[in-house]
Amino acid sequence: MATTAITHIAGLVTNDPSLGSGPLGLIQDAAVVIDDDRIAWVGASSSAPATDNRVDAGGRAALPGFVDSHSHVVFAGDRTEEFNARMSGRGYTAGGIRTTVAATRAASNNVLDANAARYVREALGQGTTTLEIKSGYGLTTEDEARSLSIAAAHTDEVTFLGAHIVAPEFADDPAAYVGLVTGPMLDACAPYARWIDVFCEQGAFDGDQARAILTAGAARGLIPRVHANQLSYGPGVQLAVELGAASADHCTHLTDADVDALGQSGTVATLLPGAEFSTRATYPDARRLLDAGATVALSPDCNPGSSFTSSMAFCIALAVRDMGMTPDEAVWSATAGGAAALRRTDVGRISPGARADLVLLDAPSHVHLAYRPGVPLVSAVWHRGELV
Amino acid sequence: MATTAITHIAGLVTNDPSLGSGPLGLIQDAAVVIDDDRIAWVGASSSAPATDNRVDAGGRAALPGFVDSHSHVVFAGDRTEEFNARMSGRGYTAGGIRTTVAATRAASNNVLDANAARYVREALGQGTTTLEIKSGYGLTTEDEARSLSIAAAHTDEVTFLGAHIVAPEFADDPAAYVGLVTGPMLDACAPYARWIDVFCEQGAFDGDQARAILTAGAARGLIPRVHANQLSYGPGVQLAVELGAASADHCTHLTDADVDALGQSGTVATLLPGAEFSTRATYPDARRLLDAGATVALSPDCNPGSSFTSSMAFCIALAVRDMGMTPDEAVWSATAGGAAALRRTDVGRISPGARADLVLLDAPSHVHLAYRPGVPLVSAVWHRGELV
Repeated sequence: MATTAITHIAGLVTNDPSLGSGPLGLIQDAAVVIDDDRIAWVGASSSAPATDNRVDAGGRAALPGFVDSHSHVVFAGDRTEEFNARMSGRGYTAGGIRTTVAATRAASNNVLDANAARYVREALGQGTTTLEIKSGYGLTTEDEARSLSIAAAHTDEVTFLGAHIVAPEFADDPAAYVGLVTGPMLDACAPYARWIDVFCEQGAFDGDQARAILTAGAARGLIPRVHANQLSYGPGVQLAVELGAASADHCTHLTDADVDALGQSGTVATLLPGAEFSTRATYPDARRLLDAGATVALSPDCNPGSSFTSSMAFCIALAVRDMGMTPDEAVWSATAGGAAALRRTDVGRISPGARADLVLLDAPSHVHLAYRPGVPLVSAVWHRGELV
Repeated sequence: MATTAITHIAGLVTNDPSLGSGPLGLIQDAAVVIDDDRIAWVGASSSAPATDNRVDAGGRAALPGFVDSHSHVVFAGDRTEEFNARMSGRGYTAGGIRTTVAATRAASNNVLDANAARYVREALGQGTTTLEIKSGYGLTTEDEARSLSIAAAHTDEVTFLGAHIVAPEFADDPAAYVGLVTGPMLDACAPYARWIDVFCEQGAFDGDQARAILTAGAARGLIPRVHANQLSYGPGVQLAVELGAASADHCTHLTDADVDALGQSGTVATLLPGAEFSTRATYPDARRLLDAGATVALSPDCNPGSSFTSSMAFCIALAVRDMGMTPDEAVWSATAGGAAALRRTDVGRISPGARADLVLLDAPSHVHLAYRPGVPLVSAVWHRGELV
């Protein structure tokens, strides 16, 4: 296999403290050697070994590809009007998630696949080299299964979210919908998925329903993750910790007990500030979680309703501006934090043996991701060793 | 000259109410004909006249190129560490603007020109087809004049801001610095500039000093604009209105009398939310200004200290999220509003006779600029009739 050295990286974030300074394992004037789809060597640019190819980074910064552990990109339709009405102070009574469910059910596999491909490509162009994808806009056995089949064509990180909301047909009998999700729908969906998720919230699924769904999924080998405490205080975070979920996502409304539970558990707190941005809600308090010892991940939560962004850089800027994170912490959470939320050790770091996922910035430091908000700074992306 | 038709534009923002619906003059399924560097025809795609060339927009939205009336892109150096310290809660005692002044003075013309070119190009790639550029990091006669000479190589909208802060050498005698700015420095700088600006603020220039500077500039044919009421209440806005300035910029701390004055004047209120974003300050209240009848413009305020973004789309998203603007209002302010702040009628609109500056979005509606924050949606830019 051909080897490639990327040299003269002004500041390289490795996320491996044994390789460089601080929690980011930062190396100045660094080089990285890629061998096939893996990182083969990391060190000082002046010590880079001979390779088949060489790319001069010209004093740019580099970091691991972003790891986005939370997206909803298998959908059809558009909710521009709902967004416009909300942000213009006009009433809007149509159905939120249900609007997307109706459009998704009506769409062909080809349309859904093309849409998912578009957002995967859009995210990759912005540096996201690992992207989890959830179902949750089908809400029938057939539509959830085909959503997951489409997701699986684009990522290894597939999450069954049949319990996004109660399907409209079951509005009068949510228990029957839980029975469907934990029965025939789970049977049809489990083969495609690694994870099972539930939206534990008033108006979606309560703690008992969420426990039943996650437990049923775990019995089929799916690992739990939870949409927890987004819109109000509730049992989601405690349930996530109790069940050993990989991640509790949103974590916007937390009691001290919730924060303590996350701080003392292996469950990652995944914060999704795009949702608070696009709904004018209060941001989650990352500082409080970090100070309690929690592991924090960031994700754009790309979905057409509450957070239609695929930009991890935007989330980093918001996390620094509005959530009490330092630039270093936010960059760690967008890379290594996301990897922790997906229980991956091969991504989110640049060290020998890791997957060769690397982002080069048109800037001398990773700090510019927060310092230069909104500016498309990603100048090159390597994904599995290939220059995208 | 060859003519080009851009057809099948899903939603075209013209900013000409006589051409389409509402204040944005919105046309569905539109076409635009470009003849050399001008707009020759605008209307329904089905009625587009024959042209030499044809570009199918494929259902994308289009709008006038952004008009950015406030930038500081003639500078050298970097203030990453200052930003990082501020956002990480660490003290930082170095000199803010003075840091950039020292670096700019020490830089060669070539370095300053290359830096300015970089940010002009970066802004253009994000859809900004008109960009005002200020001096203000030289603060000697020679360094201000060469800054303006470099700015003039990149734009027609050049602003003399010798009165950015009192030059360090005059710290003990600000009156002498005002004498320099209104005397020899103005003599050297006026030939390069269309505008004169002053930072009217505690710690910079008070109302009397600002009046003396702007009046001296006006006597030399420069039109006033004012950095007003950014960090605190003060006389800047009233002075801008009194002198008939084209724009009062920042407008963050306004009394009712300030708002009324702007609402009843021809002075545009130019809001710069990137500065509040990157300094964790309170955003200006665009809603209050709009409700009082003021004309509002938006600008990224690109500078290496308080707002190192060149992204107008980012400012639109912030204006909608945090400043009470509707998506339509924010898009108007980023295009026609900026043109008003520069007293230009040939840009900021897409109607016959206007300059052929047009942005195509990878989205079906201009609302996506707010709906999809952080995502680089600009898919094509025409500048003076040329596809960039």
